[in-house]
Amino acid sequence: MRRAQPPRKTKPTRACPELRLIPVPLQDEIHPGDSLADKLLAALRQRRLRLQSGDILIVKHKIVSKSEARLVDLATIQPSTESIAWAKQYSLDARVIELALRESRAVIRRKNGVLITETHHGFLCANSGVDVSNVNGGSHALLLPEDPDRSAASLRRALKRRTGLAVPVIITDSFGRPWREGLTEFAIGIAGMKPLRDDRGRRDSHGYKLRASVEAVADELACAAGLVCGKLNRAPACIVRGFRYDPGPGQVRDLLRPASTDLFR
Amino acid sequence: MRRAQPPRKTKPTRACPELRLIPVPLQDEIHPGDSLADKLLAALRQRRLRLQSGDILIVKHKIVSKSEARLVDLATIQPSTESIAWAKQYSLDARVIELALRESRAVIRRKNGVLITETHHGFLCANSGVDVSNVNGGSHALLLPEDPDRSAASLRRALKRRTGLAVPVIITDSFGRPWREGLTEFAIGIAGMKPLRDDRGRRDSHGYKLRASVEAVADELACAAGLVCGKLNRAPACIVRGFRYDPGPGQVRDLLRPASTDLFR
Repeated sequence: MRRAQPPRKTKPTRACPELRLIPVPLQDEIHPGDSLADKLLAALRQRRLRLQSGDILIVKHKIVSKSEARLVDLATIQPSTESIAWAKQYSLDARVIELALRESRAVIRRKNGVLITETHHGFLCANSGVDVSNVNGGSHALLLPEDPDRSAASLRRALKRRTGLAVPVIITDSFGRPWREGLTEFAIGIAGMKPLRDDRGRRDSHGYKLRASVEAVADELACAAGLVCGKLNRAPACIVRGFRYDPGPGQVRDLLRPASTDLFR
Repeated sequence: MRRAQPPRKTKPTRACPELRLIPVPLQDEIHPGDSLADKLLAALRQRRLRLQSGDILIVKHKIVSKSEARLVDLATIQPSTESIAWAKQYSLDARVIELALRESRAVIRRKNGVLITETHHGFLCANSGVDVSNVNGGSHALLLPEDPDRSAASLRRALKRRTGLAVPVIITDSFGRPWREGLTEFAIGIAGMKPLRDDRGRRDSHGYKLRASVEAVADELACAAGLVCGKLNRAPACIVRGFRYDPGPGQVRDLLRPASTDLFR
C-alpha cells in the first residue's frame, strides 16, 4: 500500500539560518586596567543573556584601548614646526597631527587637511586612528591598541576562563574608504577565526566552480556590528549569533594587502 | 507614605534592539522578465514569513540583472586588438575585457591582469562588474543593472502594490577594495532610505558633540546581508529587521566620492 505523499511543489531548500546581532550595552565607562571580560559578562547577565557556542564577540576598539591605557594627555605633546604649520593651515590640532605621525610608519597622503597614514600595524586610515572625540572632553587622545590581535586573543582567553567557551573575538574601528563617502567599520584585530573565507574551487548551487571569491568576512562582520553598536548609544560590543565561521588562528594581517600588490597607494 | 523602590543598581539603559538578518532563499532561477517581487514574496510565504513595517529588503544584483535581461552572449562580442593582446598576456577572456571597457567611462588602473574601471554609474570596481561565473555555464556575461536606483525603486513599488508596505530596498554587489584583501558587499542601488547616516552635531552618551561621523549605513547593511546571502547557497536576498533607518528618497550617488575630492584614483 502506498502512503499518501504531501504535494511536492518545490525542491528542498538548503538550511539557511537567520543571523542575529545582539548589542551589549555597557553601563559604566571603561578605565585603564579594567577587565573587559568581566564588564562584558556582567552586561550580558544584566540583560539575561549568555554567550553560546558558535557566537562571535565583536568589540569596538575604544573600550579595548581604554582598558589598555592607550590614552595620551594632549598637553604632553610637543608638535614639530611642520605639524604646527600644516595644522594651522587647516584649523586642526597640531598635537593630534603630531601623534598621528608618531603612530605611523608612512604618510600615504597629506592634502586638503586630510592626513592618511599607514599605522605601525599596517592599517591605512586617517590620522593613524588617533581619536579625540568622546575622550575626557577633548583633553586626551585615544590610540589604537598596540597589537589588536593580541588584545583579541587575550579577551578570548579571559572569556574562556570565565565561561568555558572559546568564542572568536573581532576588534573594530571605523575608517574612511577611497572612492566611497562615509565611514564603515573594519576589523583591526581578530582571534579564533579566519578573517577571509576562500570559496575558490568550491561549487555553487548550480555546480559551477566559483572564481575569485575570497570574501573578507571579518570586515563584513565588523560592518554588521556597526549597525547595532552606534556612536549614539552605549553598546560598544555585540554578539553575532548564527554565522558559520571558519575556526582557526586567524590574524588581521591576512586582511592587509601588501604594498607590492596594491594598485592604490 | 513612600512607596518601596526596587533596588537601583545601574543607570537606565537606552533601548538597544537586536538586529535580525533573515535570508530569503529562492527555489527557482530568475529569468528575463520575471517579477522579482512575486518571486520574493512567494519565497517568504513558503518560509511562513512576511514583510513587516520597518524591514529593509536587500537583494544581490545578480537576480535583478537577470530579471532585467542584462545577459550578453559572449559569442556576439568582437574584442578589439588591444583587448585581445592584453587578455592574452594574462590568460583572460578578451570578450569579457572588451565588455568591461564598453561598460566603463574611465579606466582607473590596468596592471598585472587587473582591470579597475569606473562604470557608467560611477562605481570603481574590477571589470566594470561584468560577471561570468554562475551564468549559463560561462557562455554569457551578466552586466550590472543599467540604473540600480531605478531597479530598487521599481522593486519597492511592486512590493508596495502587493503588500501595502513600502520597505526600503538596497541592491548589492561584491567589490574588491584598495588596501584590503578580500571582497565585501557594497550598495549599488537604493530606494526608500538615506544611504548615509550623518551624526555630525548630535551628541553622544556623554553629551559630547560627535565629529566627522558620517556612516555609510547602506554599505554596512550590504555587508551584513553578505553574511547570510552566501554564494554557496540560494539566498540572493535577505530581510534586515530591527534597524532604525533614516527614511527618505536616497540615491546611491550619495555614496560615491567625486573624483575632485578623492585622493586615491
